[in-house]
Amino acid sequence: MNEKEIITFRAYGGCYASRNNGAVEGAKKGAVAVVIRSINLAHDDHPHTGGMTYEDGVEKIPSAAISTNDAEYIRTKYKSQRLRLLLDLNCQTLDPKPSHNVIGEIRGSQFPNKIITVGGHLDSWDIGEGAHDDGAGIVHSIEALRILKSLGYRPKHTLRVVLFMNEENGNMGGTTYASWVKQREEEHIAAIESDRGGFSPRGFDVDGSQYYLSLLKSFMPLFEPYELYRFEKGFGGVDIMPLKEHFQDIALFGFVPDSQRYFDFHHAATDVFEAVNKRELELGAASIACLIYLLDKNFTIPQGTKHRQRK
Amino acid sequence: MNEKEIITFRAYGGCYASRNNGAVEGAKKGAVAVVIRSINLAHDDHPHTGGMTYEDGVEKIPSAAISTNDAEYIRTKYKSQRLRLLLDLNCQTLDPKPSHNVIGEIRGSQFPNKIITVGGHLDSWDIGEGAHDDGAGIVHSIEALRILKSLGYRPKHTLRVVLFMNEENGNMGGTTYASWVKQREEEHIAAIESDRGGFSPRGFDVDGSQYYLSLLKSFMPLFEPYELYRFEKGFGGVDIMPLKEHFQDIALFGFVPDSQRYFDFHHAATDVFEAVNKRELELGAASIACLIYLLDKNFTIPQGTKHRQRK
Repeated sequence: MNEKEIITFRAYGGCYASRNNGAVEGAKKGAVAVVIRSINLAHDDHPHTGGMTYEDGVEKIPSAAISTNDAEYIRTKYKSQRLRLLLDLNCQTLDPKPSHNVIGEIRGSQFPNKIITVGGHLDSWDIGEGAHDDGAGIVHSIEALRILKSLGYRPKHTLRVVLFMNEENGNMGGTTYASWVKQREEEHIAAIESDRGGFSPRGFDVDGSQYYLSLLKSFMPLFEPYELYRFEKGFGGVDIMPLKEHFQDIALFGFVPDSQRYFDFHHAATDVFEAVNKRELELGAASIACLIYLLDKNFTIPQGTKHRQRK
Repeated sequence: MNEKEIITFRAYGGCYASRNNGAVEGAKKGAVAVVIRSINLAHDDHPHTGGMTYEDGVEKIPSAAISTNDAEYIRTKYKSQRLRLLLDLNCQTLDPKPSHNVIGEIRGSQFPNKIITVGGHLDSWDIGEGAHDDGAGIVHSIEALRILKSLGYRPKHTLRVVLFMNEENGNMGGTTYASWVKQREEEHIAAIESDRGGFSPRGFDVDGSQYYLSLLKSFMPLFEPYELYRFEKGFGGVDIMPLKEHFQDIALFGFVPDSQRYFDFHHAATDVFEAVNKRELELGAASIACLIYLLDKNFTIPQGTKHRQRK
């Protein structure tokens, strides 16, 4: 990963393909297996797992990741020498089993069929607990609505928590949810996702029209005393992304916490409960509750546009 | 500590007196000893130590801190019942021994007698390693000048690292340094301190004239891409504070990292090497190196003022 990228997700984006496409690209060049340096910034002994793909018509060769320390050891000790590696892998792809998104909501008092969702994903990689990815997003989402409920807030729009099942391995939860709401002829005006860990909040990205960016930026003075500064065009989240295919004018908001420590834990055995700081987690939930409140209060259908499903 | 304070140092400021003045105020009311709830935000089992004072003419009663969990246990289990506590303390104040500030510098090419210092403090409380308080500040200070040196930068002003000895127990390092530079008739134009931990950088506070605040704010666009947003009037640092008594127009800059986790470690057994994240520490050092560079490049003596020693 490129250490010079301040936003570590950009560094991840820059080398994600080595894991995802390594087996296909390797096989095309005649490789019998592919081994990558784990995609994380820390120099440690933990291999980081994650999604990888095969392609029909290309040989399905084994694919593995080793820790950054191990990769560094091999690189510096053996340099350009030819090496033989014995791979002993026992991973396998089992048949899919039915599972479920988990949904809860507070019905809107004025526009019950206009929905603001907030969510994260329930599934995680097996080698850790998935505390940051995405236990934090699950807690953020439930806690945000619990805060509003505990304050006795009666929303105008329906506020819905969606805990998505299976983001990591094909985004089944996100695609299924989007199809489901289309069938129900619901109208989604905004969706918020937390899937970048439970660290100190810095702001929100928005993937949507200029109206939504302006609306988000108009909230800045309210967030700044709480040290949230970043309100920009950007990425919403994998789980909520399929909603864009159905709703033309929806805005997707991605919660942006401090990203510096995220890849120390991402998809690794280190992503455990103890790695999440309670206060940082709570500040994230409070920030998301505020955004939901502000959207619910201030959202109006922009002139000249109509929130509608795509054809 | 008041959890609602976003900047945790403000919460610390709000209850610091209970530890510092507890023994004096207790004795005045006839107490035989004083026991406080540790000054930290986490609910854990670690007592947090720190400075406390006695007053001539007031009985010197024992003073102790218990963990937040223990304090909560006593409060909820015994409520307003009368309790007897057996205190078994073995702490004592030993005679002072000579020690030293550690100083290194890169001489200025144009104004060698005009000095920009950067520092932290070498001493720490005995129950931990002092990794965040203030090992991080020590690394930040050395590393900031190492970065500039490794780039071959030739500063106009003298850049000096000062590793202060004994901040925690009377600020002897800071007061001694200020007297020493006065004797040498040096001119200090700016001093930077890092003593708020090794977390993700957020900005700098400045304690100085409007000229310096404007100068600092003029650097903002250069820092913002690196997620430093906070450039405000504020506190410099305990070690550099005595310089203000000698230099009328000096500016003191306090490095401001994210403060949410700091009091989990402050003055406790938890303040160890492993609690510092390498990348967050490095980003702090790089931020401080940038500020030193920008001050060295852009500082000019403001019109109508003269940097001079106080009478």
